[in-house]
Amino acid sequence: MIASYIKEIISSKGASAIRKMFEEGKVLKAKYGDDNVYDFSIGNPDLDPPEGVIEAIQEVAKDTSHGCHGYMSNAGYDEARQAMADKESLEQGVKVDASCVVMACGAAAALNCVFKTLLSPGDEVVVPAPYFVEYGHYVRNHGGKLIEAKTTSDFSLDTNEIKNALNEKTAAVIINSPNNPTGRIYSDDDIKSLAAVLTEHGKKTGRYPYLICDEPYRAITYNGAKVASVFPVYDYSVVVTSFAKNLSIPGERIGYTCVNPACPDKADFIGGVTFATRTLGFVNAPAFFQKVVAKSWNAPCDYSSYAKRCKELCDVLDNAGLKYAKPEGAFYIFCKVPEAWGDDDAGFVSVLEKNFILCAPGSGFGTKGWFRIAYCVSEKSIVNSRDAFYKASHTPKN
Amino acid sequence: MIASYIKEIISSKGASAIRKMFEEGKVLKAKYGDDNVYDFSIGNPDLDPPEGVIEAIQEVAKDTSHGCHGYMSNAGYDEARQAMADKESLEQGVKVDASCVVMACGAAAALNCVFKTLLSPGDEVVVPAPYFVEYGHYVRNHGGKLIEAKTTSDFSLDTNEIKNALNEKTAAVIINSPNNPTGRIYSDDDIKSLAAVLTEHGKKTGRYPYLICDEPYRAITYNGAKVASVFPVYDYSVVVTSFAKNLSIPGERIGYTCVNPACPDKADFIGGVTFATRTLGFVNAPAFFQKVVAKSWNAPCDYSSYAKRCKELCDVLDNAGLKYAKPEGAFYIFCKVPEAWGDDDAGFVSVLEKNFILCAPGSGFGTKGWFRIAYCVSEKSIVNSRDAFYKASHTPKN
Repeated sequence: MIASYIKEIISSKGASAIRKMFEEGKVLKAKYGDDNVYDFSIGNPDLDPPEGVIEAIQEVAKDTSHGCHGYMSNAGYDEARQAMADKESLEQGVKVDASCVVMACGAAAALNCVFKTLLSPGDEVVVPAPYFVEYGHYVRNHGGKLIEAKTTSDFSLDTNEIKNALNEKTAAVIINSPNNPTGRIYSDDDIKSLAAVLTEHGKKTGRYPYLICDEPYRAITYNGAKVASVFPVYDYSVVVTSFAKNLSIPGERIGYTCVNPACPDKADFIGGVTFATRTLGFVNAPAFFQKVVAKSWNAPCDYSSYAKRCKELCDVLDNAGLKYAKPEGAFYIFCKVPEAWGDDDAGFVSVLEKNFILCAPGSGFGTKGWFRIAYCVSEKSIVNSRDAFYKASHTPKN
Repeated sequence: MIASYIKEIISSKGASAIRKMFEEGKVLKAKYGDDNVYDFSIGNPDLDPPEGVIEAIQEVAKDTSHGCHGYMSNAGYDEARQAMADKESLEQGVKVDASCVVMACGAAAALNCVFKTLLSPGDEVVVPAPYFVEYGHYVRNHGGKLIEAKTTSDFSLDTNEIKNALNEKTAAVIINSPNNPTGRIYSDDDIKSLAAVLTEHGKKTGRYPYLICDEPYRAITYNGAKVASVFPVYDYSVVVTSFAKNLSIPGERIGYTCVNPACPDKADFIGGVTFATRTLGFVNAPAFFQKVVAKSWNAPCDYSSYAKRCKELCDVLDNAGLKYAKPEGAFYIFCKVPEAWGDDDAGFVSVLEKNFILCAPGSGFGTKGWFRIAYCVSEKSIVNSRDAFYKASHTPKN
């Protein structure tokens, strides 16, 4: 009696492998104890929110002014939009004003609103693989089709592959840097080269694909790495992001969309995203956390413990003889299954699970034969998983 | 460069007439002063949240436990789902457990998730008109078609009209009681009669339409009126609601979906709504306000001032010689345009606007020749609008 498409998905592996593992982790922990389950399934940041966020929460909670929990414009409070514009001005190195910003219930919400705005039936969105597992759903929700483009052997952008994927149906290219699941940061040169490819395609076809930059991990980088700015190099560019990862508040659903002020379609784009925010049922980003992030978006944060855990996890994986891509940012390691398993990431993830290690199979990220480890968990969990990883990696395939 | 469907909508009256008026109200107030603009455009509750909600906000803000702003299950916190199940058990008069509930970013979000779950391409959703202006968008988002069924002259359900609208494509019937925009509460007898019609249709065709009850105004009724319970009379029934209106926190986006525990498709339905919550980009209802409403959903509230304002507004309308449906609940009056204007509600709403009165035209609610007045505004605004309403109603049509 429910839609057959939905019935098929929820009864199959199309249901998020990440969320499935997350739920299974809860069951296993209840049964065997938290310390005996190594749950690397989900990007649920383990750091507490920074002091500045905690203070902002206390402060906003004290506000009892009339209407403070009421409706505001669908695009969000003026002061929140202005704060995000200030943030983007810093990060993009060009002057951004509040009219370029629509507040969102997290980056997932922002992406749905952007795709709703851009996609006509049959339109395509190109994504370098590996990519965040949910993009396919977001694109399909609005009648579009996700087209995978290969990356290089170290998961850097291959702009030729993207170029070959473009056609007159291409509404957008979406990139995610630092990348989930690989931790790769796309270099300045690669971004410039991508911008050149898109510009050339736009000139030739009259349709400039939007470049959508999904940036929730922008602040979480190692060894001083910087994430490239797209606004200076390509006019049809959009940043979507959230404060889930950098401020450790993923459950609060707060983020935003920001369009390049130089985008010739800026007004239509913002009008469309605002309309989509309203009619997809978000209506507006939560009032309370709009105010919290307007006050605390630049609260000092210390991500050094992620760097430390990354090092510890690499040591665990080295000990197990596993190959992986060394992350430059975010808090994921994308790891190759042992050679005997070939492309069978689901099979090896099952073996990991039998050893109480929960990871997400790479197939869901558009890349077979790999799996993702989210290391935003306690050091203890990482260190204690050493023997289990060794054992799993040395389990012969039946 | 954005989708042509979206471009058309944002440049036309398809853009919400309510939101347009709300935005225009802000401009007019800035120009002429708050006291000189009578803004009846939007259902933004004017009452402050009850003490119990304020206390719960303070209490939740004090929580700094590890992970308290992190991800939880997509369906929401167990304790929030349990609290909503307790609420529905009371309101529906049947025992509801937490597994029947998915927390949502407000009723608009819940409705999008329900339609995503139920609708296959071309499916239909029947709604008695007048109805909430956004339903059409919600249904279209997921490939469905909204089918209007007439109500009686006093806006009560006409179950024959609904019966005639049913066919093999009917996935659902949606009702909203107390109704926005009419304030009508559908009677127990009408609900029973509707349940009988749906049951008969289901037996005949093998497809039982879901009965979706959108109930954000359930608690706001006058003269002790009670809203009918649907769970005891029809198995394929669902309640969607929010705390926007009864607890005056519309900007915080918190509500839920609850399926009838007797629904034969219960598990699939909840699986689908949970999947839709995740992939439409909500991910989960905001963590903070899930906890707030779990603590304060039954906080004592006093809606007597809405009753008082209703009376005052009726007096203003009587003085202006306007005809209207007397509300039994919610905080809207649906009012007929003066006879000379016939079906031209947009025209008369423009005249109101010239007199600094902002209302929403009835066309958007599927009913021409009427307009909606949201009286969740200050008494002063209502009383002071007397002369403006009189003047507008006596303005000859050019």
